[in-house]
Amino acid sequence: MNAALPGHVLPAERRDLPADLLAALRQRFGERCSTATAVLAHHGRDESPYPVMPPDAVLYCESTDEVAFAVAQAVAHRVPVIPYGVGSSLEGHTLALQGGLCLDLTRMDRILRLDAEDLTVTVQPGVTRRRLNDEIRHSGLFFPIDPGADATLGGMTATRASGTNAVRYGTMRENVLALEVVVPHEADGARVLRTGTRARKSSAGYDLTRLFVGSEGTLGVVTEVTLKLHPLPEAVSAAVCHFATVDQAVQTTIRIIQHGIPIARCELLDAHAVRAVNRHDKLALRETPLLLMEFHGSPAGVQEQAAAVQALAMDEGGEDFDWATTPEDRTRLWTARHHAYFAALQMRPGCRAVTTDACVPISRLADCIGQTVQEADASGLPYFIVGHVGDGNFHVGYLIDPDRPEERERAEALNTALVRRALALEGTCSGEHGIGLHKMGFLREEAGDAALDLMRGIKRSLDPLGLMNPGKVFSSAPVPAPTSGGRRRPCR
Amino acid sequence: MNAALPGHVLPAERRDLPADLLAALRQRFGERCSTATAVLAHHGRDESPYPVMPPDAVLYCESTDEVAFAVAQAVAHRVPVIPYGVGSSLEGHTLALQGGLCLDLTRMDRILRLDAEDLTVTVQPGVTRRRLNDEIRHSGLFFPIDPGADATLGGMTATRASGTNAVRYGTMRENVLALEVVVPHEADGARVLRTGTRARKSSAGYDLTRLFVGSEGTLGVVTEVTLKLHPLPEAVSAAVCHFATVDQAVQTTIRIIQHGIPIARCELLDAHAVRAVNRHDKLALRETPLLLMEFHGSPAGVQEQAAAVQALAMDEGGEDFDWATTPEDRTRLWTARHHAYFAALQMRPGCRAVTTDACVPISRLADCIGQTVQEADASGLPYFIVGHVGDGNFHVGYLIDPDRPEERERAEALNTALVRRALALEGTCSGEHGIGLHKMGFLREEAGDAALDLMRGIKRSLDPLGLMNPGKVFSSAPVPAPTSGGRRRPCR
Repeated sequence: MNAALPGHVLPAERRDLPADLLAALRQRFGERCSTATAVLAHHGRDESPYPVMPPDAVLYCESTDEVAFAVAQAVAHRVPVIPYGVGSSLEGHTLALQGGLCLDLTRMDRILRLDAEDLTVTVQPGVTRRRLNDEIRHSGLFFPIDPGADATLGGMTATRASGTNAVRYGTMRENVLALEVVVPHEADGARVLRTGTRARKSSAGYDLTRLFVGSEGTLGVVTEVTLKLHPLPEAVSAAVCHFATVDQAVQTTIRIIQHGIPIARCELLDAHAVRAVNRHDKLALRETPLLLMEFHGSPAGVQEQAAAVQALAMDEGGEDFDWATTPEDRTRLWTARHHAYFAALQMRPGCRAVTTDACVPISRLADCIGQTVQEADASGLPYFIVGHVGDGNFHVGYLIDPDRPEERERAEALNTALVRRALALEGTCSGEHGIGLHKMGFLREEAGDAALDLMRGIKRSLDPLGLMNPGKVFSSAPVPAPTSGGRRRPCR
Repeated sequence: MNAALPGHVLPAERRDLPADLLAALRQRFGERCSTATAVLAHHGRDESPYPVMPPDAVLYCESTDEVAFAVAQAVAHRVPVIPYGVGSSLEGHTLALQGGLCLDLTRMDRILRLDAEDLTVTVQPGVTRRRLNDEIRHSGLFFPIDPGADATLGGMTATRASGTNAVRYGTMRENVLALEVVVPHEADGARVLRTGTRARKSSAGYDLTRLFVGSEGTLGVVTEVTLKLHPLPEAVSAAVCHFATVDQAVQTTIRIIQHGIPIARCELLDAHAVRAVNRHDKLALRETPLLLMEFHGSPAGVQEQAAAVQALAMDEGGEDFDWATTPEDRTRLWTARHHAYFAALQMRPGCRAVTTDACVPISRLADCIGQTVQEADASGLPYFIVGHVGDGNFHVGYLIDPDRPEERERAEALNTALVRRALALEGTCSGEHGIGLHKMGFLREEAGDAALDLMRGIKRSLDPLGLMNPGKVFSSAPVPAPTSGGRRRPCR
């Protein structure tokens, strides 16, 4: 069961598409089938530090039929298929490790139906989360999942994204109701299927929706997503609370969660991250560890939650809340939070970040972060910490000089130590970024051989030719080392 | 892809276990391996109206090792395996259609660890939900999923159970964090694997936890369940609100959900169900359609929710709330609700109930129930309706005389019409009871051939010999007709 998936590793020399395949694609897609070098290069990357791995052609799909056509052609010619949104994934998910057809889904960007009375919406995969929220605002509803980047909903489905609101509203796992998916099929070429209905719950058969959520394009191509929506809260308030130490902020978070307070957002920034966003967003936050919090509910409910949290924070040594009461103030704060990653990069010109994504049970969070901070301080590398700490999830960004391979090695060693610590504390190697290319070894450590074999069996069952985003999640194909020199962008 | 699973249908004559298998089981299990007729008969049934289909042996397992041993023996001898809890499933899930080994898991009833600070608990599959709540009460936490029956947590996992609290707390899908599972393996006999960690969220690989939740024993045997717990609410209040018509009660429910009010329970009883529980539980509820509701939160939050719901109910023609303020009053009401099924059976001595389980998007609920009530009234069969209407889920129980096959046929025809209506309204054939034997045809109608083939492929990948609870969920094996005469119990 440990062997490579059959057909999973395509011959390395196979990088020119067969002429008849290319002709068929050009006939169907016209100018929306591109083999221009710049287009291929653009689609051969994501936000990870891997070198560009371009596909052999990019197809700008505009319908489920076109996706099915492309997958069928790929099956007929035994060529890989990689679905692509805005390329904001962080672990190498969309890199065309073995070439093939990149399906750019950003033109499938229609909101197909809003069923406000059912609190559901069905969208094509290329709709981004911000556009969705802009377009449904009139309904009094919103879609809470917020991974920071303005990702597509297809991509967020594929990586099981979460972000700042997950502590209250759950992740993509909890908020995808049903999918339309194109899967490869040896006899038919491709098949289109639906994985569920619009009913809020169901006990009808295996949970195919949850199987595709988080499958990173390795089982099929998501062509429609039906999502749960939530009523815009009557009242919203945001607050910042400063602490002398990261540990105090984490202890406060632990108590908030243990008390069952339905906080909507509970984000940690360490002093390094605060300094970075102060500079980048021209804020004047005191440069200490802080929690950035948001409360949703009725006016009285929000007050009640805030009072309870304030009392817990005071107990742990937190200082008074700074309230962001106007929508403008709140937006400024959260925009700054979303800029933290890019803001931090600017603290070391020309650097790159090696980003971690551990998630542990909340009672282990203080241990996990505490040891991580010690190691990071001892490493001598500049770093920052931001975290969706209400979920036990946090990110360390190590700022490395791409021209010094030893810095990357040090950062990767720190990441490895952190993942092992998280696993020892009963946590996971990835809270929300996914496996992609970067964490395949960690997935094996976390899941164990028996569970991994089971996943590979499922993969083989759905994709016996190994054509769907090959070499991701698990693979025995050789994986290139992340680039340590030669940046593909000035400073990502 | 439509062929039967290989090995799925065992020869009908294979009903005596091989002597060497029986010897190996007796050596390992001693008296906990039983072939006594009464024991086999007891394990050859659930709460469905199918005839008894006994296994060939019952093994009272006491550990994961014993389960793995039994599965390995079954693999070696090509004999089916059926996991068994308290037999409270409703669709024939546990019937030994092809004989084989029944693994009685009720002795695996330890609460392995309570991690109160993480709001998680890990239990063996034989722990029942009531016992779990009794034993964790001191922690200030509770497990909300409440399917009525005092089912085992292994069984609730297998059927993706939900019940009265799901409208606020979700179903087993949302409340199982991780599992330990024994799966069959051709080379190793059996393998033990874990499907997740105790982290609240993860993007590490395929969601095996959700694959096993709702798989009805057809993929493996659940041997440990890690569950999310919730803080006991500071304040709880329950209320009854009467309506002149079922439609008014449903319209009120729809508005509660559309307003995003976090109601904890929202149950419909029609006048027939109210009459039945009045008699059975010696209550004096007015015999009209009613909503039985519960609110959880802070004292102020509960008041606020109740006031909002009361206003909505008045708008729809509801009458004043009758409050159940003491814990004793609340318990009486909810106990009566849980007795509704058995209470209704007593309204027609000697009868059986044919129970439906449709679930639709909330905006379709009034249509769906309205037409169902019309058809039920026109049928001449006695019936009652109870529903977890906050989820769009309701059950009609048709009370039939088991000695009149034409009544069963009429009830099954009504169920078929309801399922088709629910599917046309974008709902599901099963909100919470599962597929078992009874709904295999409906699952195909709901999911479609492509999705069903994909499920079968997953089944084949995990259980290539087709030994795990064969003939359930999907199967081309012949299914016996539900019994229309010859009750196995006086009146279930």
